[in-house]
Amino acid sequence: MSVSSSSSTYMIYRLQIDKEHASLGEIAAAIERAGGDIVGIDVISSGRSSTVRDITVNVSDQAHSDRIGETLGRLEGVQVIHVSDRTFLVHLGGKIEVTSKIPVKNRDDLSRVYTPGVAKICTAIAEQPNKAYSLTIKRNTIAVVSDGTAVLGLGDIGPMAAMPVMEGKAMLFKEFAGVDAFPICLDTKDPDEIVSIVKAMAPAFGGINLEDISSPRCFEIEERLKRELDIPVFHDDQHGTAVVLLAGLLNALKITGKSMADIKIVVNGIGAAGIACSKMLLAAGARNLIGVDRSGALHRDAHYDNKHWTEFANMTNPHGETGSLSDVIRQADVFIGVSAPNILTVDDVRSMAKDPIVFAMANPVPEIDPEVAKPYVRVMATGRSDKPNQINNVLCFPGIFRGALDCRASEINEAMKLAAAQAIASVVTDEELSETYIIPSVFNMKVVEKVKEAVVEAAYRTGVARKAWREPSV
Amino acid sequence: MSVSSSSSTYMIYRLQIDKEHASLGEIAAAIERAGGDIVGIDVISSGRSSTVRDITVNVSDQAHSDRIGETLGRLEGVQVIHVSDRTFLVHLGGKIEVTSKIPVKNRDDLSRVYTPGVAKICTAIAEQPNKAYSLTIKRNTIAVVSDGTAVLGLGDIGPMAAMPVMEGKAMLFKEFAGVDAFPICLDTKDPDEIVSIVKAMAPAFGGINLEDISSPRCFEIEERLKRELDIPVFHDDQHGTAVVLLAGLLNALKITGKSMADIKIVVNGIGAAGIACSKMLLAAGARNLIGVDRSGALHRDAHYDNKHWTEFANMTNPHGETGSLSDVIRQADVFIGVSAPNILTVDDVRSMAKDPIVFAMANPVPEIDPEVAKPYVRVMATGRSDKPNQINNVLCFPGIFRGALDCRASEINEAMKLAAAQAIASVVTDEELSETYIIPSVFNMKVVEKVKEAVVEAAYRTGVARKAWREPSV
Repeated sequence: MSVSSSSSTYMIYRLQIDKEHASLGEIAAAIERAGGDIVGIDVISSGRSSTVRDITVNVSDQAHSDRIGETLGRLEGVQVIHVSDRTFLVHLGGKIEVTSKIPVKNRDDLSRVYTPGVAKICTAIAEQPNKAYSLTIKRNTIAVVSDGTAVLGLGDIGPMAAMPVMEGKAMLFKEFAGVDAFPICLDTKDPDEIVSIVKAMAPAFGGINLEDISSPRCFEIEERLKRELDIPVFHDDQHGTAVVLLAGLLNALKITGKSMADIKIVVNGIGAAGIACSKMLLAAGARNLIGVDRSGALHRDAHYDNKHWTEFANMTNPHGETGSLSDVIRQADVFIGVSAPNILTVDDVRSMAKDPIVFAMANPVPEIDPEVAKPYVRVMATGRSDKPNQINNVLCFPGIFRGALDCRASEINEAMKLAAAQAIASVVTDEELSETYIIPSVFNMKVVEKVKEAVVEAAYRTGVARKAWREPSV
Repeated sequence: MSVSSSSSTYMIYRLQIDKEHASLGEIAAAIERAGGDIVGIDVISSGRSSTVRDITVNVSDQAHSDRIGETLGRLEGVQVIHVSDRTFLVHLGGKIEVTSKIPVKNRDDLSRVYTPGVAKICTAIAEQPNKAYSLTIKRNTIAVVSDGTAVLGLGDIGPMAAMPVMEGKAMLFKEFAGVDAFPICLDTKDPDEIVSIVKAMAPAFGGINLEDISSPRCFEIEERLKRELDIPVFHDDQHGTAVVLLAGLLNALKITGKSMADIKIVVNGIGAAGIACSKMLLAAGARNLIGVDRSGALHRDAHYDNKHWTEFANMTNPHGETGSLSDVIRQADVFIGVSAPNILTVDDVRSMAKDPIVFAMANPVPEIDPEVAKPYVRVMATGRSDKPNQINNVLCFPGIFRGALDCRASEINEAMKLAAAQAIASVVTDEELSETYIIPSVFNMKVVEKVKEAVVEAAYRTGVARKAWREPSV
C-alpha cells in the first residue's frame, strides 16, 4: 500500500480544571481564538473543587497543536495533564481482535466446540481434507503477510512497526467485505524462508495477501508461492494498484473517446507497481506502452542487470523509442506515474497528444502537482484523498478476495483482475462519468458487491473456482 | 490437550410435515417412544399444505440417532430431509473470526486506522520497538501453534485436521480470559523449521502456546523457543496438565493430611505430560517420585536411548527402586497416570499406602475405572467430565496467559506455574473441600481471576515482568 495525503488531525487535551478559577466557556473561547475547532468534550472525573476533561480539537498540524497547548497552559486554573493524538488513541491495544462466533457458557457448549466433540470434526477433515473448507475458518480467512521491508513510504521498518498497517488492512477486509484477515509480520527478509513459512502456514488459510515486501524480492516470493500453493496469493502493492489504475483508465478513455489498443502510454517508475500496472494494461489490450526509469525509456536493445527490466523491455516499447521521460512523453495519450514527486513538467504534459490523461500516483507528493497540471490535462488522477479521482487499493482488495473465497478459487488470475477492474469502473455510470469522477469512492457500497460478482464469474469462466457453481453459501 | 469423555449428543432432524396427515404431537410422541429427548423445535418454512421443521433431540449415540431417524421416516406424512449433528453444525465456517475494534465508516476513520494516519504509528514503533505493546495487538495476542502430530487421542492427523482443536482453544482463550489467540497450524514436522517459523512470526505476538506436538520433538521445540524468544512460550500439553494436576494434588494431600515432602509418588507414562508433571511435583517439594514406563521403573543405573528418560532417571527415584508398576506402586501414597487405559489393577491400589490418591488421567478411558477403584481409594481424579475431580487444562491456560500478558512477562517460569497451581487449588475453600471436590469446575469464574493475580505476582517476584509494577491497563 502507499501513503495518502493528510490534512488536519485531532488532538485530545486532558485538562484539570479548577472550578473556582476557570470555566469551560473561557477554555473553549481560548481554543477557538487559537484557531482550534472543538469537536468533543468528555468528563473524565469530577471532584468537589476540580474536574478532569478531555477536549478533542481539530488542529491543522503539530505546531498548531503545540500553540493551543501553550495557550491552555497559560489560563488560570487550568492544568494540561497530557495531550494525545486521536490517531494514537485508536491504536491503543491494537485495532483487531479474535472473537468466538459462539458463546461457551456451559459444559454442553464446551463439549461441542472443544473436547470431546471436536474429535469427530478433526477426524472428518483428516479423512476428507476438503472438509476444512466447511468445518474450519479456512473458508473465510486469509493471511496478510509482510516482512516490513517496504511499508508505506517509510521503507524497511521491520515486522513490528509494520503491524499497524497490517492490522488496518485486516480491519478493512472485515469491514468492507466480511473477510477474516490476520496479520502475519515476519522477522526475516530471506525470500526462501518467507516462501517456506507461508507454505507451512497455508493449510489453515483460504488465501494469502502479500503486503509491503520490497522489490525485487516480492516478485520471486509471489511467483513461487503462486506456483506452489493451491490458494490465491496476491501481492496487493502490485496487483491491487494495477487493478484500480486500470479501472480509472477505462473510464478516462471513455471520456476522451480513445481506445486502449490505439493509445500511447508512458509508465514512469518500473518497480513492482509499475511492472504490475504495465502487465495489467497489456492484458487489457494496450499495445504501445513504454516504461521509463532512471536510465530513461526501457527498450529491448539495451542490457539491464535487473532481469525484471529485461523482461519488461521485451514485452513493451514496440517502436523501440529511446531517451528520457521528456523524449518519450511526446504525443503520449496517457502518463502513469508510480515513481517520485514532481518528476513530470508542464512542458512534458504540453507535449502529450490531445486530451492528456495523467495518473500521478506517487505518494504523498504526486509526479506533478494537480493544480499546476490542471490547465493542460483532460483527466487527472492521484493517490491523494483530498483531490478528485483517488486511485486507492481499498477499491480492489476486499472485493477481489471476497470473490476468490466465495468460489474457493485456487488462484487470482489475470481474467479475475481484469473483471475486478471493469467492475470498479462500472460503478460510475455513464451519466455520472466526468473528468473529476472516473473512479468511485472507497465508501461506495456497490464496489465490493460488483467486484465480487465479476471475480466469481471470471473464476468459473477460467476454471479456477472449486466450489460447485453458485452453490449457496452455508 | 487430551480427549475428555462424551456421553449423549444432539441431532437435528429436518422434517417436511404434511399438515393433513401428520401432527407435531404424533412426531413428538414417536421420538419419545424411541427414547429421544426433544430439546427444541424450530420452524424453517411453512407452506399451505406442509411445514419444514428442525427437531433437536438429545440421543445417546449414533445407533440411537439412526433408530429415531427410521422411526420418523415410517410416520405417515413425514419426510426426513436430513439429519445433522449439532457438533458439526457449530463448526460450519469455523468457530472464530477476526473483527475490528473500531468501525471504519468514513474517510476520517480510514485516515486514522489506515493511511495516512497509520504512518506515524509505524514510525513511533520503528523508533521505539517497545511501543508495539501499546500500539499493536501484541499486548493481548498469542499464537496457538501446532503441527498436528499429536492431536487429542487421534495422533498425527496433520495441520488442517488439527484446526478445529486450535480454533476451539482460541475460543476458550477469548471467552475465559479475554486473550486474543490465533491458530497457526504448520504443514511441517521438522523441529528446526518449526522453531524458525515461530521465531519469525513472534514479533507480532505477546506469547506462544504450543499445542499437540508429538514427543520428543515438543521438548526440543519448546526449549529452543524459550531460549531464543523474549515472550512466553508454553507447551500446554506438558505444563497445563502439570499445573492442574498439582492443583488437584495439593488439595488431595490436605484431605489425607500428608505432606508433599514425605509422600511416595508413582508417575506412570513418561512422555511429555509425565515428565512435565514430575518436574512440577519436584518443584513443589516432592522428593520420592518414581517414573514408570513400558520398561518398568526408571532408575539412574539403567541405560536409556531416550535422553529425556536418562535425565528423568537422574532426578527421580532416590532409592533406586526397580521393577514393574506393580512392584513400585507398593506403599506409594499417590499414583499419577498419563498413560493408557486399564493399566492399574485393584491389587495395585490395594498395595498402596493408607488413603491412596489416584489420578488416572488417560483419555477417554482412565488407567483404572473410577467405579472399580472407588472402594479402595481415598481421592480419585480423572480427565473425564462425567466424574468428580476432572483434571482439565482449561483451568490453567486462559489464566496463566492472562497473567503473563498483563505484566508483559518475558517467560512463564516455574514460580509462575506453581503460583497458578496454588491459585487453582485455593478456589476450593476448606469448607468445600472433600474427596469428590478437590478441583474447581472449569466454569468457576474465580479461577481465571485468581490464577491471573497469582501469576502476575510471581512474575514480578521473579523479575520476568516487564510492565511497570501494577500500572493500570489502558
